[in-house]
Amino acid sequence: MEPTEGQITARRTRGGGHAARIARPRARAMRAAFIERAFEPFRMASEESLALIERNADTILAEIGMEFRGDEEVLAILRDAGADVKGERVRFERGMCRRIIQASAPRSFIQHARDPAKSVRIGGNACVLAPAGGAPFVHDLDRGRRYATTRDFHDLMKLSHRLDGLHHADGLLVELMDLPIPERHLEYVPAQFRLTDRPIIGATTSGTRAEDTMAMARIVFGDDFVARNSVVYGGVNTNSPLVLDATMMDSLKVYARAGQAVVVSPYILAGAMGPVGIAGALAQQLAEAMAGLALVQIIRPGTPCTMGVFIGTIAMATGAPAFGTPESLLGITVASELARRLGVPVNCAGGAVTASKIPDAQAAYESALTLHATFLAGANMVWHAAGWLDGGLATGFEKMVLDNDLCTALATFARGLDVSEEGQALDALREIEPGGHFLGTAHTRHTFETALWRPALWDTKTFEQWSEEGARDAAVRANARWKELLRTYEPPPLDPAIDEALVEFIAKRCAAIRAGAA
Amino acid sequence: MEPTEGQITARRTRGGGHAARIARPRARAMRAAFIERAFEPFRMASEESLALIERNADTILAEIGMEFRGDEEVLAILRDAGADVKGERVRFERGMCRRIIQASAPRSFIQHARDPAKSVRIGGNACVLAPAGGAPFVHDLDRGRRYATTRDFHDLMKLSHRLDGLHHADGLLVELMDLPIPERHLEYVPAQFRLTDRPIIGATTSGTRAEDTMAMARIVFGDDFVARNSVVYGGVNTNSPLVLDATMMDSLKVYARAGQAVVVSPYILAGAMGPVGIAGALAQQLAEAMAGLALVQIIRPGTPCTMGVFIGTIAMATGAPAFGTPESLLGITVASELARRLGVPVNCAGGAVTASKIPDAQAAYESALTLHATFLAGANMVWHAAGWLDGGLATGFEKMVLDNDLCTALATFARGLDVSEEGQALDALREIEPGGHFLGTAHTRHTFETALWRPALWDTKTFEQWSEEGARDAAVRANARWKELLRTYEPPPLDPAIDEALVEFIAKRCAAIRAGAA
Repeated sequence: MEPTEGQITARRTRGGGHAARIARPRARAMRAAFIERAFEPFRMASEESLALIERNADTILAEIGMEFRGDEEVLAILRDAGADVKGERVRFERGMCRRIIQASAPRSFIQHARDPAKSVRIGGNACVLAPAGGAPFVHDLDRGRRYATTRDFHDLMKLSHRLDGLHHADGLLVELMDLPIPERHLEYVPAQFRLTDRPIIGATTSGTRAEDTMAMARIVFGDDFVARNSVVYGGVNTNSPLVLDATMMDSLKVYARAGQAVVVSPYILAGAMGPVGIAGALAQQLAEAMAGLALVQIIRPGTPCTMGVFIGTIAMATGAPAFGTPESLLGITVASELARRLGVPVNCAGGAVTASKIPDAQAAYESALTLHATFLAGANMVWHAAGWLDGGLATGFEKMVLDNDLCTALATFARGLDVSEEGQALDALREIEPGGHFLGTAHTRHTFETALWRPALWDTKTFEQWSEEGARDAAVRANARWKELLRTYEPPPLDPAIDEALVEFIAKRCAAIRAGAA
Repeated sequence: MEPTEGQITARRTRGGGHAARIARPRARAMRAAFIERAFEPFRMASEESLALIERNADTILAEIGMEFRGDEEVLAILRDAGADVKGERVRFERGMCRRIIQASAPRSFIQHARDPAKSVRIGGNACVLAPAGGAPFVHDLDRGRRYATTRDFHDLMKLSHRLDGLHHADGLLVELMDLPIPERHLEYVPAQFRLTDRPIIGATTSGTRAEDTMAMARIVFGDDFVARNSVVYGGVNTNSPLVLDATMMDSLKVYARAGQAVVVSPYILAGAMGPVGIAGALAQQLAEAMAGLALVQIIRPGTPCTMGVFIGTIAMATGAPAFGTPESLLGITVASELARRLGVPVNCAGGAVTASKIPDAQAAYESALTLHATFLAGANMVWHAAGWLDGGLATGFEKMVLDNDLCTALATFARGLDVSEEGQALDALREIEPGGHFLGTAHTRHTFETALWRPALWDTKTFEQWSEEGARDAAVRANARWKELLRTYEPPPLDPAIDEALVEFIAKRCAAIRAGAA
C-alpha cells in the first residue's frame, strides 16, 4: 500500500479548511521533500537471529508482561482485546501484538505539510530527516552553553528551515526554558506553522496538550482534512524497561483517536534501562514497541504508526550515555530489520548523536557513524539528524549546519549508481587517450555543474589558501554560515486568517491554563 | 582456498632463516591481528548494473586498450599471452584478463609478519587496517604542519605500533624529506622490521628499490620462507587513465617474480583522471586493475594480488580532491563488489581520508563516512585507516590516535550480534521488574567489563566535569594521548644478528647508491 508520488500530489487538492485559502505559487521538486533510497538497506543479522529475537520478545510479553500504569481505560481496552490483565501488569499471548499490528497498521503513510510540496512519505524506501529536539540547553561558539529560550528556539527553527538536508520541523528543537511548562506547547506547536512549512511534531507531554495540538492542526489544515489525513506526528516513549505511563497513554489515545501518526519508542541504554547484551536489548525494544503499537491499533485500526528505536550504551568509564558505539550501530541496524518484519515504518532516534559538548572531531565521528548506519539500516524517520550535542542536553547552532552536509551527502548517496549513458561515460572514455585528462571533455563540462554533491562547509582549499583565510576550523566556518542563513531567512507565507485564528486560540488556552482550568 | 586460523598458526613453524633464531615468548590472541567480519558486506548495485560495468571494462580493454609505457619486456610478455600489442598500446579481447586472473590468483592469502601472531589474512571476510602513508608533511597541534623528517617517521611508526585498531605497518607513514630519494627505502623498509613487528609494505618506486626490499625481507625471514610465503606487500599504481608506466612495471615484475603480494591500484578522481559518472569511473577502475593483475598472473601464476580501489571526486568549488563524498562512497562500495566477482581481495585506499588540514569536525565527518563505508563494503585491506590529513599531503599525530577509535569500533561491530545466552540476556530481563534498573543485575556485573567497546578519546563526562578539566576538545585530548603512547613505547624484540645483517646490507647499498651504482 505504498502511495506513489502521484497519490501524494493528488492529495494536495483538498476541500475545506483554512488551508484552501492559501495561494501556493511554489513549484518545488517533489524529490527534495524526502529521500528515496534506490537500493535495499544494509542487513547484518541472520534469519535465525532475527527469529530468535522475535521469539524472545514474545516471551517477554507473555511471561514478564508490560505495565500500563495509572490508566484504567487502557487496561479495560487491553482486557477486552484479549490480553491477560493483572493489576497494571499486562501479558500478551505469543504473537498477539504482532497479529493486531499487522491486521491494520499501514506499512507506509504520508504526513502532510502545510506546503503540500513538502509532505513526506514515511515508510518503504523513504527516509525523512528531522533536526535534534528536546534539549534544555543551546550551544554556539560565541555564547557557549546556556539554557535555551524562546528566542533560541525561534532562531533554531528558522535555521533548520533553511537547511536543505532536513525534511521535517521536528517540533521542540530546544526546550523553552523561559516559559512555564504548561504553556510551552502553545509556543512550539504554532511556531512550526509560522516559521516553517515542513511537517510538524506535536505535543505528547499530556493529553490536554495533545488535544491542543490537534485543535491547532485543524485551524491550519481544516477539520475535514485532519479527519482524513496525517498532519501531525507525535512521540510516545515507553518508560523502559516495560512500562507505559499515564501521561504517554493519554497522548497516545488522543493521537490514535484523531488518526494522527504516532511513534512508540522505547529508550534503552544497554546496562541501564535494558541488558548489556544487544540481542536482549533488541528483544526488549521489540516487546515494548509492539505492546504500544498494538494499543494504538486496538484504539483505532489503521492509525499511522512507527516503531521507534533508541538503543545506546552507557560508557563504562563514567556510567554516562555513549553514542556512535558499535553496539548502538548494531542495535539500530537490527532493530530496523525487525520493524520491517513487523510491517511498520521505523523511526530511529539515533541521527547525528554524540556525547561531545562541542562540534569537534568526537562530535563528528559519533554523528557520522550513527547517521550513516541509521540511513543504511533503512530508517524511515530519523530524529536528531542535525544539531544534537552533549547526549541530547544541548542543541548546537554550528553543529546543526555541520550535520546538514552529512544529510545532503546521504540524499545524494541514496540515489545509487547512475547507469544511464551519461553515468557510464563511455564516450568520455573513448574521447580521452590513455594518460589524458577528463577536465576538458564535453562530458565533464556537461555534467560537472549538476553531477556532484556540493557540501557547504567541507573545505578543499590548499593549505596555503586556507591559512591565508585565517586557518578556520569547520566549527568556525559553521559559525559564519548559520548567521548568514539566519540573516537571510524569510518566513514561508501563511494565510493571515489562519495566523489570526492561531493567535486567538493560543490566547484563549493560555488564559485557561493560567486560570488553572487545564 | 581460505586458509583457516589453524593454517596460519601452522605456518608459524618454519624452517631456516634468521627468524628461526628469535625467541618468541608472546601469546597474543590471534583475533587481534586482523578483523573478521561476521556478516555479509553491504551491497547496493544490482546484478544488471554490475554486469554492465564489467561489460564496459571489457569494452575499454578491447577497444581503447591500456598503455604499457617504456617496458619492451612487458610488451613481449603480453604479446606472447595473446594480447593485441600495437606500439605501447595493448588491447585485450573481451574476458581475457578476467580468465587469466581467475585461473591462478588466490582469493585469499596470508601476509606474514615478523611476529607470526600478527600475520594477517587478506581476503574473504578479513579486514586489515593500515595507517596513512605517503605524505610529505606531518602535522601536530604543537608544531603545526611541516615537512616530515626521519624523526617524524620514526615517531609515527612507534605510535602506529601502539595503536590496537591497526594491523599493518604500512611502510612510508610520511616521506623522509630529509633523506635523498634513492636512499629513503633503506630507512623506511628496515624501520618497519625494527620499530614494529606487524606486516610491512615494501618499496615500489623503482625495480632496484623493490629488489632491495626483497633482500631485506630475506634477511629477516630467511630465503626459504620468503620463497614460499608472502612477507611483503607492495603497491603498484596505474597512471590513470589507462597507463602503466615503466617504474611501476619494474616493481611489479620484481614482486611477482618473488611471489610477494602486490596491489594494482588505479587512482581516479572523477572529473580528472576519470569521467564524472561513477559507473564510468568504475568501469575504468576495473579495466586498469584487471590489466595490471593479469600481467602479475602471467608473470608468475598464483602470486598473491589485490585489486586496489581509489575513487574520489574533485570539488567543483576548488578543483581539488574531495573526500567522504557520496560519490566516493558509492565508488568504494561497488568497486569492492566488482573485486569479489573478479575473485581477488580488495584493497581500498580510502580509509580515514579527508581534505581537512587539521583534526576538526570536517576531518572526522569525512574520515568516519569513508572508513565506515569501506569497512561495510567488505574491503580486505584498508590503506590510510588512521592519520590522513589534507588530501594525503599530511599525516597527523592527533588524527592518527583519533582515527584509532574508529578502527577499534569497527572491529567490535564486525563481530555482529551476539545471540549466545549471555547476549540474549533473558535471565536479566526476568530478574528486573518493569520500571527497574539493570545496573545492579548479576548479568550486567558479569558482562560489563568485557562486553562493551571502550574508546580511548571519546569523552562521556558531564559538561561540568569536562569544563573543570579544561574543556578540552577531542584533538587536544589526542595530543596528550599520542605523547603518552610514544613515551611508553618499547620496541618489539629483534634478533641482534638480524639487526646486524640489516645494518650491513643498508651500509653496503647506501655506499653503492652514493657511488652511483644504482
